[in-house]
This record gives sequence, structure tokens and C-alpha cells, in this order.
Amino acid sequence: MATVKQSSNRSFSWQVRVYYEDTDAGGVVYHSQYLNFMERARTEWLRQLGFEQTYLRDEQNVVIVVYSAQLDFKKPAKFNDLLTITSEVVKIGRSSFEVAQTITIESTILVQGLVKLACVNPHTFRPVAIPSEIITKMEQL
Amino acid sequence: MATVKQSSNRSFSWQVRVYYEDTDAGGVVYHSQYLNFMERARTEWLRQLGFEQTYLRDEQNVVIVVYSAQLDFKKPAKFNDLLTITSEVVKIGRSSFEVAQTITIESTILVQGLVKLACVNPHTFRPVAIPSEIITKMEQL
Amino acid sequence: MATVKQSSNRSFSWQVRVYYEDTDAGGVVYHSQYLNFMERARTEWLRQLGFEQTYLRDEQNVVIVVYSAQLDFKKPAKFNDLLTITSEVVKIGRSSFEVAQTITIESTILVQGLVKLACVNPHTFRPVAIPSEIITKMEQL
Amino acid sequence: MATVKQSSNRSFSWQVRVYYEDTDAGGVVYHSQYLNFMERARTEWLRQLGFEQTYLRDEQNVVIVVYSAQLDFKKPAKFNDLLTITSEVVKIGRSSFEVAQTITIESTILVQGLVKLACVNPHTFRPVAIPSEIITKMEQL
Repeated sequence: MATVKQSSNRSFSWQVRVYYEDTDAGGVVYHSQYLNFMERARTEWLRQLGFEQTYLRDEQNVVIVVYSAQLDFKKPAKFNDLLTITSEVVKIGRSSFEVAQTITIESTILVQGLVKLACVNPHTFRPVAIPSEIITKMEQL
Repeated sequence: MATVKQSSNRSFSWQVRVYYEDTDAGGVVYHSQYLNFMERARTEWLRQLGFEQTYLRDEQNVVIVVYSAQLDFKKPAKFNDLLTITSEVVKIGRSSFEVAQTITIESTILVQGLVKLACVNPHTFRPVAIPSEIITKMEQL
Repeated sequence: MATVKQSSNRSFSWQVRVYYEDTDAGGVVYHSQYLNFMERARTEWLRQLGFEQTYLRDEQNVVIVVYSAQLDFKKPAKFNDLLTITSEVVKIGRSSFEVAQTITIESTILVQGLVKLACVNPHTFRPVAIPSEIITKMEQL
Repeated sequence: MATVKQSSNRSFSWQVRVYYEDTDAGGVVYHSQYLNFMERARTEWLRQLGFEQTYLRDEQNVVIVVYSAQLDFKKPAKFNDLLTITSEVVKIGRSSFEVAQTITIESTILVQGLVKLACVNPHTFRPVAIPSEIITKMEQL
């Protein structure tokens, strides 16, 4: 279950269902799993902008890697919850950009994150410029 | 990205997108991850039948556990693939049932599985009868 | 925490600690996670025989993939349990072999599995012969 | 493979082997997996201090949850790497404490993290005081 929700100009929303695989014996979503949810949302945001990451990797020689993440876990998500993840680009550099992401359930904020990403060459892991077509799309947001 | 696809009387289809988290350094989906995909599909099949597992656990004192799985990995799924998982109940007992599951991409079979499930008490893990309302729904399939 | 335990001629034992990441909201180890534990044990068994999988992949052009798994989940493992995984080669073919694996805690069997593995080329995923040095070692068991 | 390495007064080291399950199709460890490695190291550090988390949960009614994490991913770890995770308590409050953690391979820093943890009641998730026996042990570090 995951559909595109209404998005403002600058933010993109994506829904993720919590399955047993995402939870731990504390009865809640295991903390590192929120990073996975956030990457799913960024992947779908790029897809909505028109960029398949397989295209970026295979045709443009670019993969996008996380080089920093700041996460604040405010309330736990539970099994079967339907979470909404909002993603907003807050900074764009030459080869890196930053995305503020929030995980909510019925307007209660569960997790807030700031994820810093870099475009790198898939073979050398060296930084490369963000493809100009992505920059253009991001600046239209 | 995951929507209900056309289902025959007796089978239910669910789509799952492959993200980086699902893959390994061999470039393909890590083998145990297919069991997770299969559980997502069974969860959504139960939901479509009208059964939230939180309701089953909290109101009916029933959780559904896997007690056996036979998996045949025929071809690998890759990053960004959109997989279809079909699930079909092939046997119903008093406290257990069996689901044949197939993971395909564009009609190519990647993984075939037979998953045997039991209804158990969430506290004692002892077998309990499948709730009659589920039996009724399954037999209507 | 994971050390080599006494092994008989034909079987290899490896210990795995259960962390929160391995469990689910049912309070027990999530079922697909046992496949991960089994692969850890096979990896360490190969290492003990003298084969690093990075060497096999980079020098011998061989990766080992799971093409079939039969799993019987008998009793659940719980958070903080120290599990013992035994692995025994039960069949050796030209490009494939089968390993019987058992996960126990204090001599209680929790999970039994039969995992069928194939040697494949890392680029084409086509079957290749098991490296003769591995065959030799396996037959010495 | 995971053994206690020499630890200074105030820091604890723990080794973790990278298996296929930890990697992604980029050929490196998937970024959220480092949070799992860090929790394994904290769990073993607590165990070395004399505290099983099952004891804390069942006898003391205390579980330890992550409420904030700052992660800097500097270099990628790869399949089969043997990583060392060092953990050092840098701040102790009434119900919360902070641990600086570093993941290295052969003295190269791969990941640096600051993880903030809180002691909570396992049923209400409300903050409770850090058990005094843990405080005592931490202050002896």
C-alpha cells in the first residue's frame, strides 16, 4: 500500500505500510528501519520527477549516496501503521543536496530527519556533479 | 508503489518495488528478502478479505505464524524492479493453512514458494483454530 | 558474540546472538532472519575451510547462490538468545551442493533447513563448476 | 566472528563481520545497517558491564531506546570486511545518556555516530531513571 498523496510545490509525500519485518520485540518499528522508509520516499520522489535511478546509474554514471543523516525519533510507529513520509529539498550544491524528511501518522510527527546526499561515480565513489536535468527539476519545485 | 492487480477468484496479486535495502552486493535481491515480500502480500490479501492483523491479534487473540517454507529461487530480481506477488490458498486445516506464492516480473517467474501458516495464541504460541470468519471468506474464494 | 564451537568431522557449528534488529513485534525472531543466520554460518564454515568468498569471487570468478531452501520453524528464538547453527554438507554435485542446517539453543532444535546452493559466474549468473579446491576440502570432511 | 578487543578505560570495542545480508547493489554496506552494528556494539558493551537487556526489561522494567542519532558516513564498508565498533559514553543524564560510536577498519574511520538513548518503561514508553547500578558502572569507566 503506497500511493502518492497531495504534495505541495516543494514537498513530496509517500505512504509506507508497517509490516512485521519492520518491527522489533519492543513492539514498535526498529529505529534503523526509518532510514529505509526515508530512502523509499526519496526514490519515489526522484521517480515522480522523471528519474529512474537505474537510468542515472547506467546512462549517467551517477549513484546517489547518503553521507550524513540526523534523525530524531519522537514517537514509535507500530505494526500495521500507515505512515506518510514527506521529503523536501532544502539545499542544493554542485554534487550534493539535502533533504528534510518527516514521518507522520495522522498528522502526528513520529520521526524527523535531515539527510545529506551526494552524487558519486558508481565505480570510484568519487563525487560527481548532480545531473543538470535533476537540478533543473529541483529548481522548478 | 504497490497496488492491487486483477485477481482471479482464488488468487490475490500485490506489487512490490525493489529498493536498495532489498539488494545485496551480488547486484540482486538478497534471498531472504523474498520471504518478506511474500508476507507483505499475505498481509494485504488478508486486509482485502477484511481482516486487519491488529484486529485478529487484539480482538481475536490470534496471530498467524509461518511454520514451514519451501522456496525455489529461479531467477534474480534486481534493484528498481516492480515485482508481482501472487498468493493462493491451497489447503485449509483447523488451525493451519497453506499458501502457494509466486513472484514474477512481466510474467517471468522469479521465485516460487509454498508457505505453511498456523494460527497461534500471541502469548503462548499454542495453535488455535483459524477464526471462522476467515474460513468463511477463504471458502468463498 | 560468535565463536567456533567443537565440530564433528562432517559438521560445522557457529554461534549467533539475537539482537533487537532480528526480532519482530511478536516478540520472537522474524522468520526470514533465520535464512540470514544460516548464510552467516555457511560463510564462516567456508572461511574455516580456507575460502574467503571475496577470493572466490575476485580470483576464481565464482559466487555461491541459494537456489532452493526448505525451512521448518519449530520453536521461536527470542531477543538475546545465543543460537548455535550447525551446517553439514549432505550432497555434492558438479556445480551445486546441499547443506543441512539446524538452529538450536541448548540442544533444543528451533529451525531445520535444507539449503541448496549453486556456484555461478558473478556476471552472467550461469552455473560454473565448484572450484576443485573446495571439492577436495569438502570430501575430506 | 566478533570478539572483544582491547578497550581503554572509557571505550569498548566490538567486531562485526560484514555478510551479504548487510550489503546492497552498490557493492557496499547499506547505510541503515550501520545503526544495527552500533546497537550490537552497545548491547555487548552493556553485557560486558554485567547487564543483560532481558534482565533490565523483565526485572527492572527498563528498555533502552534510541531517540536521536547523528551519523556521518565517510567511507563505505564492503562485503567480508571485519569492522571494529568503538563505543564511548560521553554524557549521562537522569534517564538518558549519549554514546559516541566509531566504525573503523584497520584504523580507517568509516562511520562516526552520536547516539542518544533513553531508558523507558517497556509498556508506556515513558522515561524512567537509568538504573543506579548502570550509573555506577558507567561512572567507574
